Amino acid sequence: MNTTQQQLVAARYGEASQPSAIAWSPVIEHLLKHRSVRAYLPDPVSDEQLAAIVAAAQSASSSSNLQAWSVVAVREAGQRAKLAELTGQAHVEKAPLQLAWIADLARLERLTQITQRPGEALDYLEMFLVAALDAALAAQNAAVAAESLGLGIVYTGTMRNRPEEIAELLGLPPRTIAIFGLCVGKPDPARPADIKPRLPQSVVLHNERYSLDAQMPGIETYNAAMARFYEEQKMKVHGAWAVHSSKRIANADALTGRDKLTGALRARGFVLK
Amino acid sequence: MNTTQQQLVAARYGEASQPSAIAWSPVIEHLLKHRSVRAYLPDPVSDEQLAAIVAAAQSASSSSNLQAWSVVAVREAGQRAKLAELTGQAHVEKAPLQLAWIADLARLERLTQITQRPGEALDYLEMFLVAALDAALAAQNAAVAAESLGLGIVYTGTMRNRPEEIAELLGLPPRTIAIFGLCVGKPDPARPADIKPRLPQSVVLHNERYSLDAQMPGIETYNAAMARFYEEQKMKVHGAWAVHSSKRIANADALTGRDKLTGALRARGFVLK
Repeated sequence: MNTTQQQLVAARYGEASQPSAIAWSPVIEHLLKHRSVRAYLPDPVSDEQLAAIVAAAQSASSSSNLQAWSVVAVREAGQRAKLAELTGQAHVEKAPLQLAWIADLARLERLTQITQRPGEALDYLEMFLVAALDAALAAQNAAVAAESLGLGIVYTGTMRNRPEEIAELLGLPPRTIAIFGLCVGKPDPARPADIKPRLPQSVVLHNERYSLDAQMPGIETYNAAMARFYEEQKMKVHGAWAVHSSKRIANADALTGRDKLTGALRARGFVLK
Repeated sequence: MNTTQQQLVAARYGEASQPSAIAWSPVIEHLLKHRSVRAYLPDPVSDEQLAAIVAAAQSASSSSNLQAWSVVAVREAGQRAKLAELTGQAHVEKAPLQLAWIADLARLERLTQITQRPGEALDYLEMFLVAALDAALAAQNAAVAAESLGLGIVYTGTMRNRPEEIAELLGLPPRTIAIFGLCVGKPDPARPADIKPRLPQSVVLHNERYSLDAQMPGIETYNAAMARFYEEQKMKVHGAWAVHSSKRIANADALTGRDKLTGALRARGFVLK
C-alpha cells in the first residue's frame, strides 16, 4: 500500500483493525474518500451537473428494469426552507440542491392502466421494497457521481419523519413516498468534514456462514476507536458506539416520528400485504 | 461531449432522448459503463479484491452510523450450487463469488443486551427499512468497486424468493434476512453484456414538484426504444416496456414467492410494526 492508500484505510478503520492487504483502483480511492458534508457554500449546482448525477443514478441496477423510483430536485429557496422545517435539519436549507428520492409505484400503476392489466402485485410489501431498494441503488450512484464533481453530500433519513406533509409539499401522488433525501452542494472549506471510522471487516464480513459471536471482539475494538473519534471531533456523543447506537433504538420516541411510518405508507396507498 | 461520452450517453438513453449537456468525470464515465453480467469465467475473486469491495461498501453512508447490515461471502462450490437452486438462477452458481447482503438487526439487538437497554424500536418497519437501505447503499458501492477491478456483477433479488431456506443455509440468526444477492466474477468475454437503455430523464427527474402526466411522452419514447433493444438483443421479451413491466406486477404469482415476504420477515423476527 502507498501512503494515500494507507492513510485512507487507516481513516476508515483506525490503526488497530485494518485489512492486511487490499486491491486498489482510482474508483476505490474515490469511494474510500467519502465523508458526509453538513456545511455548504451557496453556489448553485448546474443543470449539466444535475444531468450527470441523474444519468449516474439511472446507470445503477434496477429490479427487473422496473425503474420504480423518481427524484425531485428542489433548488428553490422557499421550498428548501420548508423541507428544512419538515426534516428538522438546517443543512437541508443551506445545501443549494436537495434531491428527494421517491419510492415510486405510481408510474407502474399508470402502466397497468394503459395496458389494462390488474397490477395486483403493487399491493405487496415486496413491491414497496423493490421501489425503496431501486431508489437506494440509484441514490448511491448519484452520491458517488456528485462527489466526483467536487460536490459534497449527506443523506437525510429525516425525510421519513413527516412523510405526509413532505408528499404534499412535493406534489406526490398515491403510491409514492419520499424515502430519503440527499443534500448536494459545494462543501464549505472553512468547516471540513472528516472520514468516519467504520466497524472492522471481521464484524460485517462473514465467510460462507454468518456468525454473531465472532463479531464481539471487533465491536469491542470499534467501541474504543469511536470513543476517541467522538472526543477528537468534539462531538456531543457520550460513551461508546454501542451506547450511542442502543440509545438510538431504545424506544418508539427515538424514531422521531418514524414509528408511524407503516400507517403513513398505508395512507399513501402502499398496502404492504 | 467527446466520442466516448456521446457513445455512453447514447447507449444509456438512445438517440432520441438524451440530455443536451452533461458534466463529466472519470468516475461518472465508470458509472455510466455499468452493465449486468450473467456469464462468468471461473477465476476466483481474491481476498485482496474482497477486502477492497467490502471497504468500499463500508465507505457508503449509514443511517445514524448504525451500520445495520452484514455481508456473507459465498465462494465454496457446494454452497453456491445450493444458492443457485434456491434462487432458481444458474449464474449464482457460475459466478465465483456470491455476496449475500444481510439486513441485520441482530447485531443491534446484541448491543441492547450488552448495554441493558430496551431496543423497542427494532420492532418497527422503520428499522427494517433502515437495515435494507443501509445494505443497498453499501452493496452499490461494492458493485462500483468490483467493476473498477475488472469484475462484473449482477444483483439477485431472487434471494427473497425462499428467504427462510436461504437463512438456514447461511446460518442467519433471528432479526436478519438476505435482502438481495450480488454475483461477482470475471465477465466471460465470449458472452459480453450490453448497456441497457433507461427511461428519459424527463420521466424520472422532477423539478420542484412531482408530475405523473409529464412523464407520459417520455414513456412512449422509451417503449419504442426498448422494443428495438429487445429485438437487437434477441431477448425473449414480447411487446413494449410497459407491457413487460405490467406483466411483472400483474398478480401475486408474478412475485415468485415474494408475495409471502411479510410472513417470512415476521417468522425471522422482524415485527414490522
